Amino acid sequence: MAEDMFVPGDVWLVGAGPGDPDLLTRRAERLIRAATVIFHDALVGHGVLALAEPGTRVVSVGKRSGRHSKDQASINALLLEAALAGEQVVRLKGGDPSIFGRSSEERDALAAHGIRIRICPGITAASAAAASAGISLTVRRHSRRLTFITAHASEGDDFGVNWSSLADPNATLAVYMGKAVAGKLATRLQRAGMPGDTPTIIVESASLPEERIVETRLDRLGATARLVMGNGPALLLIGSAAVPSRSCGPKISMSNFTTDLISTA
Amino acid sequence: MAEDMFVPGDVWLVGAGPGDPDLLTRRAERLIRAATVIFHDALVGHGVLALAEPGTRVVSVGKRSGRHSKDQASINALLLEAALAGEQVVRLKGGDPSIFGRSSEERDALAAHGIRIRICPGITAASAAAASAGISLTVRRHSRRLTFITAHASEGDDFGVNWSSLADPNATLAVYMGKAVAGKLATRLQRAGMPGDTPTIIVESASLPEERIVETRLDRLGATARLVMGNGPALLLIGSAAVPSRSCGPKISMSNFTTDLISTA
Repeated sequence: MAEDMFVPGDVWLVGAGPGDPDLLTRRAERLIRAATVIFHDALVGHGVLALAEPGTRVVSVGKRSGRHSKDQASINALLLEAALAGEQVVRLKGGDPSIFGRSSEERDALAAHGIRIRICPGITAASAAAASAGISLTVRRHSRRLTFITAHASEGDDFGVNWSSLADPNATLAVYMGKAVAGKLATRLQRAGMPGDTPTIIVESASLPEERIVETRLDRLGATARLVMGNGPALLLIGSAAVPSRSCGPKISMSNFTTDLISTA
Repeated sequence: MAEDMFVPGDVWLVGAGPGDPDLLTRRAERLIRAATVIFHDALVGHGVLALAEPGTRVVSVGKRSGRHSKDQASINALLLEAALAGEQVVRLKGGDPSIFGRSSEERDALAAHGIRIRICPGITAASAAAASAGISLTVRRHSRRLTFITAHASEGDDFGVNWSSLADPNATLAVYMGKAVAGKLATRLQRAGMPGDTPTIIVESASLPEERIVETRLDRLGATARLVMGNGPALLLIGSAAVPSRSCGPKISMSNFTTDLISTA
């Protein structure tokens, strides 16, 4: 299909989805198989990278291992060099590259040199987490608004957001990378008027074998995140839609543990 | 892979993505091929349905052809009957079933009869539209918040949303099914303080051969939607992130037409 072809001077920015290679798009799979070089982030799943053909150069440019974000310039340089050398370049990012993927930085850097970035979308973490938890992110009549924010601790206590506009229990708030700041976030939302009993779900390592889903409520979110969760990347889903069906099976655990802790505090 | 198996008493709710079958996930493709019956919405692309094996019963339960939403009960009944008969049931919805897919209504109706819905996520329209337009929905430091709303005219003039919380030009607003109400929506956002020159992109029929992308600004959105766009479903992207790279090629047209109209008005 012509749409997928590598045209000299193009770089394909490909969404790797949440981690499970079965949640890659068919186009992403074909592009990964056709690439001569793949530059990938730390959050891209091993199963996804395993789809690359033998002989493909697979380069990690993840920022997790002690690197700093100033390395964006060196990532841009690597992409540019490979594209100018006529390689079939795939830039592979976890989730959907258009949602908290910083893709416009690479797009603009390459565009300045006449290299065009084409984008293959991916399943974003919120969609994967909702599917795993068996919930819908929107519910007709209530929960008609869905908001995504990211909560890197580096952004300071305010995360650069307007809290009162987020503190609506009848909207759904999806917080990317929010586990480390879950307590602060819950405090801010409650101060802005969101009820403490607002349903909340934490989904860690969505779609991967080590996936963990814990149901809690806003006023217990900080303690639940600290005491119950592991080390994988996690998404927080907050709002009245974040209530799993009771027929969803044993994957979901209620944080009774935390409830007990809270009630004895 | 065991995760994909049909277990008696389960119904798979599968995201069909924006329309292009290449944007299906690998799991969705396998489930479509394994189904004995597929119940699909009007917005599911023909190319997606064409992946079903010969002999699969493919049933349209779309609400577009004069049907009313009270038909949800009959859809539930169809799903239930097929699941209880031991069929391998796929319920196929456009985009991601968790985002404006009304999936919790079907989940709860089936759960009441002991039928479990399992969810395979899909590429939501906003991700596909951003990929086609060559933009990122979030941009680090500015455009750090991304909000999805839907704007069915049936919901009345207020769409049930808090306008002041949406009128932030440094967030990105994605409006699903918003073309028919684009003018009203633009007026509401401007009254709530969003600047008239806020960048805006309309993406119609994202990912399909008839895809159309038009760049405009908030105060011209109503006229652009009315005069320039066709009949396909459209997504509106509003905010400072909605500025395509100039290297994205000829797919994007500026609504100069509308600009002229406005300037002579």
